[in-house]
Amino acid sequence: MPRSQSNRLSINGERMWATLHDLAKIGGTEKGGVRRLALSALDREGRQRFIDWCRELGCEIEVDGIGNVFAVLRGEDPSLPSVMVGSHLDTQPTGGKYDGAYGVMCALEIARGIRDRGDVPLRTLEIVAWANEEGARFSPPMMGSSVFVGNLKLEDVLAFKDVDGVSIGSELSNDALVARAKGRGPRGIAAYFEAHIEQGPVLEIEDKPIGIVTGAQAQRWYDVSIVGTEAHAGPTPMDHRKDALMGAAELALAVEAVARRQSPDGRATVGTLTIGHPSRNVIPGAVTLTVDLRHPNDDVLGDMDASFRKAAREIAVARGLRIDVGDFWRKPHVPFSEPLMKSLEAIAGDRGFATRRITSGAGHDAVNLAASGVPTCMVFVPTKDGLSHNELESIKQDDAVTGCDVLNAAVLDALNARR
Amino acid sequence: MPRSQSNRLSINGERMWATLHDLAKIGGTEKGGVRRLALSALDREGRQRFIDWCRELGCEIEVDGIGNVFAVLRGEDPSLPSVMVGSHLDTQPTGGKYDGAYGVMCALEIARGIRDRGDVPLRTLEIVAWANEEGARFSPPMMGSSVFVGNLKLEDVLAFKDVDGVSIGSELSNDALVARAKGRGPRGIAAYFEAHIEQGPVLEIEDKPIGIVTGAQAQRWYDVSIVGTEAHAGPTPMDHRKDALMGAAELALAVEAVARRQSPDGRATVGTLTIGHPSRNVIPGAVTLTVDLRHPNDDVLGDMDASFRKAAREIAVARGLRIDVGDFWRKPHVPFSEPLMKSLEAIAGDRGFATRRITSGAGHDAVNLAASGVPTCMVFVPTKDGLSHNELESIKQDDAVTGCDVLNAAVLDALNARR
Repeated sequence: MPRSQSNRLSINGERMWATLHDLAKIGGTEKGGVRRLALSALDREGRQRFIDWCRELGCEIEVDGIGNVFAVLRGEDPSLPSVMVGSHLDTQPTGGKYDGAYGVMCALEIARGIRDRGDVPLRTLEIVAWANEEGARFSPPMMGSSVFVGNLKLEDVLAFKDVDGVSIGSELSNDALVARAKGRGPRGIAAYFEAHIEQGPVLEIEDKPIGIVTGAQAQRWYDVSIVGTEAHAGPTPMDHRKDALMGAAELALAVEAVARRQSPDGRATVGTLTIGHPSRNVIPGAVTLTVDLRHPNDDVLGDMDASFRKAAREIAVARGLRIDVGDFWRKPHVPFSEPLMKSLEAIAGDRGFATRRITSGAGHDAVNLAASGVPTCMVFVPTKDGLSHNELESIKQDDAVTGCDVLNAAVLDALNARR
Repeated sequence: MPRSQSNRLSINGERMWATLHDLAKIGGTEKGGVRRLALSALDREGRQRFIDWCRELGCEIEVDGIGNVFAVLRGEDPSLPSVMVGSHLDTQPTGGKYDGAYGVMCALEIARGIRDRGDVPLRTLEIVAWANEEGARFSPPMMGSSVFVGNLKLEDVLAFKDVDGVSIGSELSNDALVARAKGRGPRGIAAYFEAHIEQGPVLEIEDKPIGIVTGAQAQRWYDVSIVGTEAHAGPTPMDHRKDALMGAAELALAVEAVARRQSPDGRATVGTLTIGHPSRNVIPGAVTLTVDLRHPNDDVLGDMDASFRKAAREIAVARGLRIDVGDFWRKPHVPFSEPLMKSLEAIAGDRGFATRRITSGAGHDAVNLAASGVPTCMVFVPTKDGLSHNELESIKQDDAVTGCDVLNAAVLDALNARR
């Protein structure tokens, strides 16, 4: 189907929005959020609702050993690689209605539109609901897609435990869907699309309804230990202190400055900071803290890393502290597909929607797909105040429909592309 | 007895040092520290050992309702106000051998010297062991002396509870000594002396064996709450953050600078700092921290308070944060007796010991006595590396003997002073 046709095949925005809010009732909280922790009964209920909706359309349901669900709408030529569209249905402990669910419901709406029109696209459409994207109870996040692309081995993951010592394997043995799982069929993937809320403030501030995601930021995470000398707050003059907290404060601000020098793409966060034996009238002798550095460009992130380590050394010398910077985790930049980005930009442009290229700050299942070699792109929609992982997470209906509409056109193009 | 005589009446340093280390065996820890928490069985054992030693000298033992112990060595004229000398016997949970115990053992050695010589000084000597100076399990610290001078009412204190809900009253009901307590006899106090380890590094750094304590620093303690916006560390650009931790870091350094501008006497400590929902990849939305400001001069401390609050306001505006500075507690400067300071300085000078006037950074029972109007002074001895409230707390035998010797001469002068 040529582009000129797909442009007229718009989605049913009211239906998509209503279905999204029907889903949000499962695990819905008093404050308007959602709690559907991965591997919980509510997560299973949400996934079952999604499966029921897909079966109504005639989709075949395939489930793999970690619990990823693929709802398959067969195309005219099932031998061709399929087009995969989706996101995740699990939430943070006090999560919102849109993180993840929005992308899956967009994919469902695309399939419903195809069925409404009685179309049979050239390629097979797969709607995917990735398992345990949030990683809130069982780490790491993006677990389902990591197992899918082979970054994690299923047998290893099944042995992972939560803080109470319960393993993923034992939790999954209670999951009838996974117990009966026969895995996903042997299909290639021509393209992967994911719509998601931005989870940041940029689109809202710039009044752009559509973010075309260029890929994932490179990230480096660190564990920092600062050791000084614990001492009594009263008798110890300022010049004779080796105050680990003051060193930590200086390091936090140095880290912030490192990211500010790489504005607007650099990011630096000190998310945890713990004093060894905190007491109101004791000079802290030991502090641990974490640092999270991000930038879309691997080389720039390398420079940020060097600046951060230099600051740590200088502060240690100036304050007589011992500062150890430990590498906790790192991830290179993952670029998304330039042709898919251009296609989405053209579609949005035709419809008169302003777009902005944006690097994803958060991790997404799409990053696993892209890193594994699947042509991948994401569409972001504005998030009120950039607020996410929060019961107050909110998006505008108009923006949600716009995002779904643009995604729909791109997916239909891909479904009907000969190659 | 004129000064010229008292100078020749030196103490038995070996005996004092040995007795101090005998006492340290009660509650002694593997690492060389002491654990005699107030109101514990070990605390009672330590106090009983002290009482036994005092009874061997013929002291009468008086105990009051909070457990302060007064060992009374009657003078030639019991109608004259007495001279009180002492400190405390309880320790921190992982305390050292010298904090408190040194002062009580100095007082015991002074009494032993009087008995050795068969002297009967003009005035009555009271050796005091104050109850619960540390306040480790039951707050506040300096409880025994606070009840003694009337800052706390006994009936109120008996209802105070530890974190497990056990009251002081119920613990004291198990204490045979307190159960039989008839209180201290109706004597005035001519002077109060206390020897103590410095618990800071100043005397060691300046190589001065004797610190003549000028009084207690004025103190202001604060609870600070900083509220920004919790957000995802990846998608949120640096310019759109309201990072409570970065605000806290800036405030901590501002507070440090406030004290440095009042060098060497100003002190500022951020002893606790807690992030609301700490997570490696979440920008902190809420931080609480405590601030402890000290200076010997009330007016200067008032200026420091104003500078601190101004910094908090400026940081709040610059970073779009809400910063609330709450008053937790405050205490004015308490001066010790200038005549007693001069007397101690003259005695030390006669013996060729270098002295230094020093304001006490830590709280001491002596401060309660001074604030209640009793002419009071303290002698500090150097503490290795300024380390205290620590099992590794250490002092040199020579310094301990020097301190006791100077204190002895001053106490004998006071005991024989007609007025």
